[in-house]
Amino acid sequence: MLTYDLSERGSTPIYEYLARRIREAVLTGELPAGERLPSKRALAEHLGISVITVEAAYAQLEAEGCILASPRRGYFVAEAALGPRVSAPEAPPAPCAGPRHWELDLRGSRVDTSRFPVAAWARLTRQVLSEGGGALLSPVPHQGLRPLREEISAFLAGYKGMSAPPERIVVGAGAEFMYIMLAQLMGPGAAVAVEDPGYPKIRQVYSRSGARCIPLPLDGGGVSPEALRASPARSLHISPSHQFPTGLVTPVPRRQALLRWAEETGGYIIEDDYDSELRFSGKPLPTLQSIDGAGRVVYMNTFSQTISPSMRIGYMVLPPELMDRWLRELDFYSCAVPALEQHVLARFLSGGHYERHLARMRKEYRSLRSDVLSAFRSSPFAGRIEIVERGAGLHFLLRLDTDLPDSELRDRADAEGVRLAFLSDYSAAHPAPEHTLVISYAGLSREQLPRAMELLDRVFRK
Amino acid sequence: MLTYDLSERGSTPIYEYLARRIREAVLTGELPAGERLPSKRALAEHLGISVITVEAAYAQLEAEGCILASPRRGYFVAEAALGPRVSAPEAPPAPCAGPRHWELDLRGSRVDTSRFPVAAWARLTRQVLSEGGGALLSPVPHQGLRPLREEISAFLAGYKGMSAPPERIVVGAGAEFMYIMLAQLMGPGAAVAVEDPGYPKIRQVYSRSGARCIPLPLDGGGVSPEALRASPARSLHISPSHQFPTGLVTPVPRRQALLRWAEETGGYIIEDDYDSELRFSGKPLPTLQSIDGAGRVVYMNTFSQTISPSMRIGYMVLPPELMDRWLRELDFYSCAVPALEQHVLARFLSGGHYERHLARMRKEYRSLRSDVLSAFRSSPFAGRIEIVERGAGLHFLLRLDTDLPDSELRDRADAEGVRLAFLSDYSAAHPAPEHTLVISYAGLSREQLPRAMELLDRVFRK
Repeated sequence: MLTYDLSERGSTPIYEYLARRIREAVLTGELPAGERLPSKRALAEHLGISVITVEAAYAQLEAEGCILASPRRGYFVAEAALGPRVSAPEAPPAPCAGPRHWELDLRGSRVDTSRFPVAAWARLTRQVLSEGGGALLSPVPHQGLRPLREEISAFLAGYKGMSAPPERIVVGAGAEFMYIMLAQLMGPGAAVAVEDPGYPKIRQVYSRSGARCIPLPLDGGGVSPEALRASPARSLHISPSHQFPTGLVTPVPRRQALLRWAEETGGYIIEDDYDSELRFSGKPLPTLQSIDGAGRVVYMNTFSQTISPSMRIGYMVLPPELMDRWLRELDFYSCAVPALEQHVLARFLSGGHYERHLARMRKEYRSLRSDVLSAFRSSPFAGRIEIVERGAGLHFLLRLDTDLPDSELRDRADAEGVRLAFLSDYSAAHPAPEHTLVISYAGLSREQLPRAMELLDRVFRK
Repeated sequence: MLTYDLSERGSTPIYEYLARRIREAVLTGELPAGERLPSKRALAEHLGISVITVEAAYAQLEAEGCILASPRRGYFVAEAALGPRVSAPEAPPAPCAGPRHWELDLRGSRVDTSRFPVAAWARLTRQVLSEGGGALLSPVPHQGLRPLREEISAFLAGYKGMSAPPERIVVGAGAEFMYIMLAQLMGPGAAVAVEDPGYPKIRQVYSRSGARCIPLPLDGGGVSPEALRASPARSLHISPSHQFPTGLVTPVPRRQALLRWAEETGGYIIEDDYDSELRFSGKPLPTLQSIDGAGRVVYMNTFSQTISPSMRIGYMVLPPELMDRWLRELDFYSCAVPALEQHVLARFLSGGHYERHLARMRKEYRSLRSDVLSAFRSSPFAGRIEIVERGAGLHFLLRLDTDLPDSELRDRADAEGVRLAFLSDYSAAHPAPEHTLVISYAGLSREQLPRAMELLDRVFRK
């Protein structure tokens, strides 16, 4: 058993000290690759510390790729050496680079990228490359490649009826990068209201970027204008077309009320339209940006949900006043998206590939979604669940009739190799109801469904 | 002549109001494409405002792509319509997207990308794409693709004798993005000492990201440890191998003194090694990171200088303590570099293409540099200049014996279609000497040199 004198750690937190000592043992070879580590509980007892502390140390080592977690088997020293690797560049990716493998992952934001027309993308890439180094090497305007902004403008006009001239579009390296830019645009200490429950990265990025996040609770229509007026917020970040994680759709009168708030207070609304292309039934509501007559809305979206999260491209449409401010204050930032991707994406849009891909995805996800919902509705636990969904997006809510607290459900799921997300995971200030799961189904396959229901039945069992 | 009632502008600054009115006139077609705008001086007189105000309005409209500046001919309404463009996706990039064309640009950070082995890069890209969608679509660890970090680690070991295990490398979307991450890692309000004169983006990004920049003057060895100790800074951002813009190389004893400061105060040194691959004579000094025994140095570099600025890929090597902090606090950020570029760059490194490319670039730039220096030394103004250079990098200093102030030299250069940079442009708090030009020669061709000397002679003429 690993034995360390914890009194030697000085002011270092125990978990950090423990992680460091284990890391050293791995680096020196004292703990050889493949060696099984003691269970969290056993090591905690042995060292006289809490299980949570050992868990934190193991989690850190796992994140570093130093150890591997294997569901139901425990923790092992990773295969790859950790020292500087000077030779053997042809080696396959070290196994320690991967995250934990789950038999069933209902939390992953993975979209099923097998639906992506790789061949078309590859062909366009080859086409751009065959035209010489220009596309690869010539400088890109800081706002993003002009032809790409024109295509995005045309797409927004055709697909969503939005008026978004290329001059007011800024291309950015994914949603997180754009949150940083918006925080910098709003200035240090800006008070930004965010949805609670909500997508945690929004709060994390804004807070890290110097903004002050004010979580506001949601009623049946989203953020309430009264709560907003009572708060010190001057900006509001929302996803009115399909809120994450609740799935709420903000109705038109509420949208108008929020716009009135912005006009009257000189505030801004950031409309984060992250998955609005994936609506499966009903007519989409017009975006806030299209009914904003006063230039108070920033519209933002990415290609992560619809193409791939590993292609970091998104864009913002800024209202005239903020666009002027961006040009004055932030135009020194180079566009962080490589030129090649911008050229290829522009052609992917102009050639109609993107719209065709969206149509296919909607069709396939609609059908997958329906199969997933059927599987739940005919599962052994069907009588104890209620499904809340609005015919949109890649997730829905599932309310479970149970006495078990969420933490207990999660422990059970963990032991079965099942990754779950709870509504309560996404709440900051306002406690969310227990026993409500957020089911992200985009990474599932139909073949997996019987086994998935079997695993969930074990987790949910009384 | 454009006539506007400036009293209608309310509290809007004049330049902004003027820009808005001209923009409207362009949008409505009142000012048709190709139309010449009045000269700055003429419009200023006509409206009874200062030339500087008109200049600010024109600069903004130019940045927006609304108007074009043509050297010695004036300003023109840009060709492209500004409204949302819904059709004609095959149109070539609108001319209004481009920046001003200079006959001679000695300020540009453009590297000569014609030297880049586009064919090899394209081949590797095709190879990665031919292996299916995996490289395009599968998720990338937040620190960056493991094989890429391994290759960077091997490159740093082989090329610079550095020990930088892949576990402590973070891949980022270019230098600016990494400055943001470092500011967030150091925490809000962190006091960061920066070189003065220095690369302006460092100050801009840090300040916008909530850090407090403390510009410190440079003596013959760089930042002085005494000035550092007298300042409230807890971090220091420097380029000891070849400072921009002075070209200073920090000698070893000074490096050791700076490391002592970091050790004694618990501070960090950010070693921004932006162009150290381009040393043309003498032996490179070891990096600060390699002589740092106490884990106080963050090493950072990009591929912008050596491959292309439009491929936004850089990396940081964090010391253990900061790496732990990054994993705890910032690992929620996705890697902002697309997966495809990471795969291709990893192969570009492992196949030896990068080292061969560096060797070729060094050879070609060495020869170009020598021709540029000869051209200056045999120019009509050779007797009035002193060249300051250290056999490294893509720029050098040129001291001109003149009575003209820098502003007058710039105006003259402007009129000749010549873009100049002065040492005084890069100073924040500590005034830099006048009459010292920063010559960036990487974008020049040999053929251009006679004409360049002719143009400069006109600018420098007494």
